[in-house]
Amino acid sequence: MQKTAPEMEFKALSVETLPARLGSVDAVASLVGGPAENSPGSWKVREVGDGNLNLVFIVEGAKGAAVVKQALPYVRLVGDSWPLPLKRSFFEYHALIRQEKRDPGSVPAVHYFDEEQALIVMEFLSPHVILRRALIDGRELPNVARDLGLFTARTLFRGSDFSMEHRERKADLALFADNTELCDITENLVFTDPYFEAPMNRHTPGLDGMVRALRADRDLKVAAQTMKHIFASRAETLVHGDLHSGSVMVTDSQTRIIDPEFAFYGPIAFDVGMLLANFWMSYFSQRGHEADGSRASMRDYLLGVIEETWNVFRAEFANLWRTERTGMLHHRSLYEDQGDALASEQALNHVVHGIWADMLGFAGVEMHRRILGLAHNADFETIEDEALRARCETPALKFGRHIAVNRNHIQAMDELATLARLLDEGEVS
Amino acid sequence: MQKTAPEMEFKALSVETLPARLGSVDAVASLVGGPAENSPGSWKVREVGDGNLNLVFIVEGAKGAAVVKQALPYVRLVGDSWPLPLKRSFFEYHALIRQEKRDPGSVPAVHYFDEEQALIVMEFLSPHVILRRALIDGRELPNVARDLGLFTARTLFRGSDFSMEHRERKADLALFADNTELCDITENLVFTDPYFEAPMNRHTPGLDGMVRALRADRDLKVAAQTMKHIFASRAETLVHGDLHSGSVMVTDSQTRIIDPEFAFYGPIAFDVGMLLANFWMSYFSQRGHEADGSRASMRDYLLGVIEETWNVFRAEFANLWRTERTGMLHHRSLYEDQGDALASEQALNHVVHGIWADMLGFAGVEMHRRILGLAHNADFETIEDEALRARCETPALKFGRHIAVNRNHIQAMDELATLARLLDEGEVS
Repeated sequence: MQKTAPEMEFKALSVETLPARLGSVDAVASLVGGPAENSPGSWKVREVGDGNLNLVFIVEGAKGAAVVKQALPYVRLVGDSWPLPLKRSFFEYHALIRQEKRDPGSVPAVHYFDEEQALIVMEFLSPHVILRRALIDGRELPNVARDLGLFTARTLFRGSDFSMEHRERKADLALFADNTELCDITENLVFTDPYFEAPMNRHTPGLDGMVRALRADRDLKVAAQTMKHIFASRAETLVHGDLHSGSVMVTDSQTRIIDPEFAFYGPIAFDVGMLLANFWMSYFSQRGHEADGSRASMRDYLLGVIEETWNVFRAEFANLWRTERTGMLHHRSLYEDQGDALASEQALNHVVHGIWADMLGFAGVEMHRRILGLAHNADFETIEDEALRARCETPALKFGRHIAVNRNHIQAMDELATLARLLDEGEVS
Repeated sequence: MQKTAPEMEFKALSVETLPARLGSVDAVASLVGGPAENSPGSWKVREVGDGNLNLVFIVEGAKGAAVVKQALPYVRLVGDSWPLPLKRSFFEYHALIRQEKRDPGSVPAVHYFDEEQALIVMEFLSPHVILRRALIDGRELPNVARDLGLFTARTLFRGSDFSMEHRERKADLALFADNTELCDITENLVFTDPYFEAPMNRHTPGLDGMVRALRADRDLKVAAQTMKHIFASRAETLVHGDLHSGSVMVTDSQTRIIDPEFAFYGPIAFDVGMLLANFWMSYFSQRGHEADGSRASMRDYLLGVIEETWNVFRAEFANLWRTERTGMLHHRSLYEDQGDALASEQALNHVVHGIWADMLGFAGVEMHRRILGLAHNADFETIEDEALRARCETPALKFGRHIAVNRNHIQAMDELATLARLLDEGEVS
């Protein structure tokens, strides 16, 4: 913050300036190829950022390729009327290295970080595509449920007071406590704006009646605010903070999680809820992408992915609970060391039951904000026929409302698979 | 932290050095009296610290008196084998000025703060006595329930996201996030040590069987760890952090809350639970201080204080909810501004219901740690007859276990008054 020397001043990269500016960085040159002093001129640079916030370049050279991601001092989607601090790059970098440690191989390798320039050089993932795109295309990826179940369980457990040395965790919490602007975005765009006529909201025209009903729905609005309260106050673990299907890159065999710039200490259930919400939205969007029932198998696949992701999360969380519970909460000294391993199982049930209910609350709200708020998702947005899109979005909104409001009264995932089918097929409406 | 100049070095005050060291501070001299350059020599200085952590001096001069409180770099009770950072004085100072703003007149006025010397000069409260002492003496103070109900409601509501501007609250949360060593003390001494054979524990000899039973009590231990989880992760508001009857000074008409050095962003229910626990302990200790039923009225008084404190807390919290809900949670834009004031009442019920259950959990654990852990309290400790003391402590332990484990299944305070009487009179055991 105090750096004022000219060479420290932030300057946005461009396709033209990138080779000169990064050519002298050994970590980059050794990755992209050629002797550092000769190669930059021969680099092929493309800007591919399609997200809402940042610049993303792919740099290719004789030896290989790298991704260069640079934050901008404003929201790219909106422009410099919406400033956003560069320090989000610092939080992304620190989240990436923690996630790599907690679930090795789950995130792109980081090769270089320049805090002043808000710039991270990382592994170029190829031939990976964005998971959301793959699901829109109807691809049934065999490993994503397992990989994402493991990723969430491992990163969320290992960043919590169930696992970490508590002083280390508190220092880390203080480090991430300053990522306030990105938390603000979630607090406003996810939990509040969808439920009143906020200026930046938009929705598919056919939904007017539905939107009116939801914004008059007392139980839903109180549930959404309760989830906001939990989001804003429950600092349980280092969460990814933006774990939707657009933050996952896949091949048929590999799954990598990207873009953790929203990382902060928050509730364990948040990442899981947002992730499953995006699978449920993919499910409800399939009718918008199919011809003649061609997505029937894809629908079964998605309900299977949701069930498997949750089951893998639960199983791995339980596994870590039994084998790595070295933090200050529910410590062995109180349970196993006194010959009462069943006490540890009881505590595990209580914890997972709480995550389940909160997960449903976060998922329901995430489904609403993607249909009613500012940041829509391509699952629905790529359905060009607005009437058809509204017919897909309507059951998704109802499903979201159901799980958010009834989160403490739903027992298991099979009930929700049934409910999703009934709503999608118009059996209940 | 980086101050190394000799004049900045921390030096503990003594009765002898205090006048010379503080005589040149205008804020002190103008309070204690005489022209600053002449008066220090005539000051009367006493060291009166009877707490576990700090030095406390009363300074009297021609014009008046002041209290000088100085932190030591270790736990006074234990000595320099247990280091404790001086920065707790910084957190106490910042908590005091916030509490004064949020509930004017509830805390001693602060006249001077020296961060390097970990030293706060504040109002000398006279003829106030420590509330715990007054209760042991059987004094029925008419205003404490109302004053403490208002203090908790106002400070806890006004420091939360129900009230504060959210960026201001996040900055404040980051400010207090470094008070980790004092949170550590609570996490260990309150939530964990009492439930296994921790080295610093002690208890009245007659309780051996009871202690064994509690340490084998699975439901209790899981409940205590659940409360620890909530304590450590739910950053809802700026809590006092140590709000027992030893942190309250009273006259028949005045109530002042002191010693907020444990302040941090924690759960709303924590202060209320700790406070009521100490009233319940006072209740169960009365048989140890009476002759021939002379404390019957005091027992009625204490159960009345507990009910009134809770009712005043609830009423004032609801009042502030309806009139000062300007923070980012449950904002008017979603409820009242859409013509649905009943939604705000629904949300209030949900929030208060949650505080109630958590309050009972914290209260139960606090009652245990004061009887089984390191830091006992004078209510029981001043009962010299150990058998009698054990007979007072036993129902208190059972009451604590009951409210901690059943916190989600107790409806109202009158049920607990009945339970306390049944246990105290041996009707149930």
